[in-house]
Amino acid sequence: MTAPGPLSLNTATVKEQWSLQQCIEGCARHGITGISPWRDKLAEYGVRNAAKHIRDVGLAVTGLCRGGMFPAPDAAGRQAAIDDNRRAIDDAAALGAQCLVLVVGGMPQGSKDLAGARSQVQDGIAAVLEYARAAKMPLAIEPLHPMYAADRACVNTLAQALDICDALGSGPGDAHLGVAVDVYHVWWDPQLKAQIERAAKRILAFHICDWLVPTTDLLLDRGMMGDGVIDIPAIRAMVEAAGYRGFCEVEIMSAGNWWKRDADEVLRVCQERHRTVV
Amino acid sequence: MTAPGPLSLNTATVKEQWSLQQCIEGCARHGITGISPWRDKLAEYGVRNAAKHIRDVGLAVTGLCRGGMFPAPDAAGRQAAIDDNRRAIDDAAALGAQCLVLVVGGMPQGSKDLAGARSQVQDGIAAVLEYARAAKMPLAIEPLHPMYAADRACVNTLAQALDICDALGSGPGDAHLGVAVDVYHVWWDPQLKAQIERAAKRILAFHICDWLVPTTDLLLDRGMMGDGVIDIPAIRAMVEAAGYRGFCEVEIMSAGNWWKRDADEVLRVCQERHRTVV
Repeated sequence: MTAPGPLSLNTATVKEQWSLQQCIEGCARHGITGISPWRDKLAEYGVRNAAKHIRDVGLAVTGLCRGGMFPAPDAAGRQAAIDDNRRAIDDAAALGAQCLVLVVGGMPQGSKDLAGARSQVQDGIAAVLEYARAAKMPLAIEPLHPMYAADRACVNTLAQALDICDALGSGPGDAHLGVAVDVYHVWWDPQLKAQIERAAKRILAFHICDWLVPTTDLLLDRGMMGDGVIDIPAIRAMVEAAGYRGFCEVEIMSAGNWWKRDADEVLRVCQERHRTVV
Repeated sequence: MTAPGPLSLNTATVKEQWSLQQCIEGCARHGITGISPWRDKLAEYGVRNAAKHIRDVGLAVTGLCRGGMFPAPDAAGRQAAIDDNRRAIDDAAALGAQCLVLVVGGMPQGSKDLAGARSQVQDGIAAVLEYARAAKMPLAIEPLHPMYAADRACVNTLAQALDICDALGSGPGDAHLGVAVDVYHVWWDPQLKAQIERAAKRILAFHICDWLVPTTDLLLDRGMMGDGVIDIPAIRAMVEAAGYRGFCEVEIMSAGNWWKRDADEVLRVCQERHRTVV
């Protein structure tokens, strides 16, 4: 097997330790050539400052996290989400990001209408798609693990995400609307290989971490690559067979372990595992 | 909408409070007409004692939990699982259970071979199927939520479970090998309606509880019907449209809440919610 694509640091991996400025400096210091900021960190630093700093040290921006969160209990809430996604597209464009990652949102508070939330997601993406195309900013729908269906993302499989792409006119050769493949969210899916093939050029990002056994928290107990049960090289081979040639973006939210460690150590371990188990 | 099928008590719901003997007495006292024991409780009481007691008070046994756990690191381990499943079939037959529920097992310790584990599951079921047919004991594959793929069950969707049924010769009109539909495990599935239709007569059990937001533990934080986000009546309508006419089996594993309450109170709340939100 060939070497994996270059490593990118999703800033969530060291969010408790470092500001965005420190993440950029850390990537430069460690020879990590890609970064994927979250918008809260970006807002702290300022988009202009961040864009200039990232350009100065020569990092690729493999994504901006995140747009999405479309469902809302009323039309005003849905419009606010659309407006916020337009701002996220502007920010992503200012950074020269390769895509804006969409965590699409779950059911509005008090709702049990999962199908309705899914419709709202598709409508929301449709409503921002032209804006994104005009900004030349690809949108990457990230299917989240089914355990987040209620409160974070009601798009839970690659098949579902690709159905939305199809419905909104983005085919296998067209990358203006595509998907982010995060091994944590999709590794269990019996249709994984077939759906990655189907995605083809629509794979806009590839995220890595690992699934720990046991997992002690639904959100903040992700594992370092190699510490869990996911066959990451097998999934990397699938996305590469589908034509993906981009970065491997590490995104580990780990309140009990990696967020408590020295961030330079975390980056060193990410690099070592990227070389040895991805 | 018509009234739901009668209520059955899965003994896991009050496992911290009551023995199987107390569960049987509790069902009789509360007018609950079905029960589904777990094998640890059954072993404590003894199969003969339990069977006689259940017969004496006239309860239906809507399932025995559980067979399965097929994958193992070596042939001896896999054979031990097959032998254990045969004993479970004997126990289920002695109780006059409507089915033996199969929680199929995850990946063996240290393995990252999910596809291999899935093959082992199908082979394991194949190996016990004739024994089950001879005992006239239907086997119900229970797809578990994808968050259990690593360590409890690598069959994670109804589609997968039905593919196994198809492969082993159990078609839509044939109930010797079928599925258990638990709303907790399947509510998020975009294919839910289509796969329930496909299941048809192969739906051998219908389990109810609810998905809480937030969910604080992957295993032991299930909610009481009505306290979460699952549209239970919608799923009940699907299984009934597919021809299911059996019990609604309540199975709530809740270390922080329902296991701490008085078991008679738990049964009363189950009955009230069964009447009002199922």
